[in-house]
Amino acid sequence: MSSAWPGATRYRLTLEYDGGRFFGWQRQEPGTRTVQGVVEEALTRLCGHPVLLVGAGRTDTGVHALGQVAHFDTLKPREPEVFRRALNVLTPPEVTILDAALVPSVFNARRAAWREYRYRVLPRRAASALERDRVWHHPGALDLDAMNRAARYLVGKHDFSAFRSANCQSLTPVREVHRAEWIPMGEEIHFVIRANAFLYHMVRNIVGTLVLTGRGKWSEERFVTVFTGLDRRAAGPMAPAHGLYLSQVHYQTAITLP
Amino acid sequence: MSSAWPGATRYRLTLEYDGGRFFGWQRQEPGTRTVQGVVEEALTRLCGHPVLLVGAGRTDTGVHALGQVAHFDTLKPREPEVFRRALNVLTPPEVTILDAALVPSVFNARRAAWREYRYRVLPRRAASALERDRVWHHPGALDLDAMNRAARYLVGKHDFSAFRSANCQSLTPVREVHRAEWIPMGEEIHFVIRANAFLYHMVRNIVGTLVLTGRGKWSEERFVTVFTGLDRRAAGPMAPAHGLYLSQVHYQTAITLP
Repeated sequence: MSSAWPGATRYRLTLEYDGGRFFGWQRQEPGTRTVQGVVEEALTRLCGHPVLLVGAGRTDTGVHALGQVAHFDTLKPREPEVFRRALNVLTPPEVTILDAALVPSVFNARRAAWREYRYRVLPRRAASALERDRVWHHPGALDLDAMNRAARYLVGKHDFSAFRSANCQSLTPVREVHRAEWIPMGEEIHFVIRANAFLYHMVRNIVGTLVLTGRGKWSEERFVTVFTGLDRRAAGPMAPAHGLYLSQVHYQTAITLP
Repeated sequence: MSSAWPGATRYRLTLEYDGGRFFGWQRQEPGTRTVQGVVEEALTRLCGHPVLLVGAGRTDTGVHALGQVAHFDTLKPREPEVFRRALNVLTPPEVTILDAALVPSVFNARRAAWREYRYRVLPRRAASALERDRVWHHPGALDLDAMNRAARYLVGKHDFSAFRSANCQSLTPVREVHRAEWIPMGEEIHFVIRANAFLYHMVRNIVGTLVLTGRGKWSEERFVTVFTGLDRRAAGPMAPAHGLYLSQVHYQTAITLP
């Protein structure tokens, strides 16, 4: 899966998609539309042999991507731009191949140095008709400073069990967060979080809990107590999928072939 | 339609909607979903008598609104906020009532001092999966300076026949444009145009023509010649509806009752 066949050529794809139109990233049984499924199907048609697409992150149903990264191998190499254009013709408009590049066979989309997610919240009286599937509506003001004071505690290497959902299959609950902050964006506020990797539902559980501090329901102390208490049942409710975006995936060395 | 019944109370509504989900603003035969239609239906249920909703601008099928303004009269007055909340429950999520206010019966949504439209263009190689119904994709760079040099000629009181579509029912092709400029917004560019009123398809015809100057296909001189030539057939193609937003409607005196 990660090492190329002899004689195969490896490509890296960067993808944007509307998570509301797919049952998540990961391929499932036929008839269940997933991002990996539709792109693999198009690649298989283009290459004339079965193609496996390996993604950096397995986004859930409803979660969007601005910069998902994936790799695949083929025995029928072409110009990367030819692949990109052909894939955009063969896949539905809800997924776009932003970039395609040749990479050496040591490149593995799974082995990212860090991943960045963005969570969009709209704190105002009325919901948005235009952004209804793109942003989580909060019917009232949120205290950005209080949310940022709490978010600071997430930065660093910690046990994130308090924000880990039950079905998480990760071997360890420890993750290293490089950045975690709320940024005002017009009427919206965006939570940007960057980490070496994420636990199952980690960002949505964190956002749901930070919003409690922003509403003044939770003190900074309570947030810290829950975070360090490592008990998911003590944390806040999970924020919905449709506000979440996989925004960026970064690799240690930027390896592309000429 | 514009003067209230004796004893009636007049309200002003501010609306946001996703034009892709409606056959335009204006009520049509039953079964054809329009913004005016669904909001009037909800108001009629709330008031217990037929309600007519008068809008500032009749947006076409596919055209969005960030700040459409409308008024209605009722014999069953309530707190404006009660109307706003109830309407948001009774109407589909593709339309949102942002604001409701009591206004004197001399207020008429049609008699705006100016209207502002915004047109979103995404000039980049790949189309956007997330914004596919919100922005017009242009597969390549556009010269913003060239487009702004041409747009300057639109400002002022002019005959806009060159940008008026065939079915326009306006008595005169003369309009006064207060502002017309392209603004960079992240990866996108937005055309903002403000005028006392607009002719049929005027903004979309202007945008389609300005993009020809941005692509380097048309010189500034050719734009001016076509604009002053007053012949629609000489102008560029019409830009699609899904990039256009009625963004703001302004009235001479801000009249709301306490």
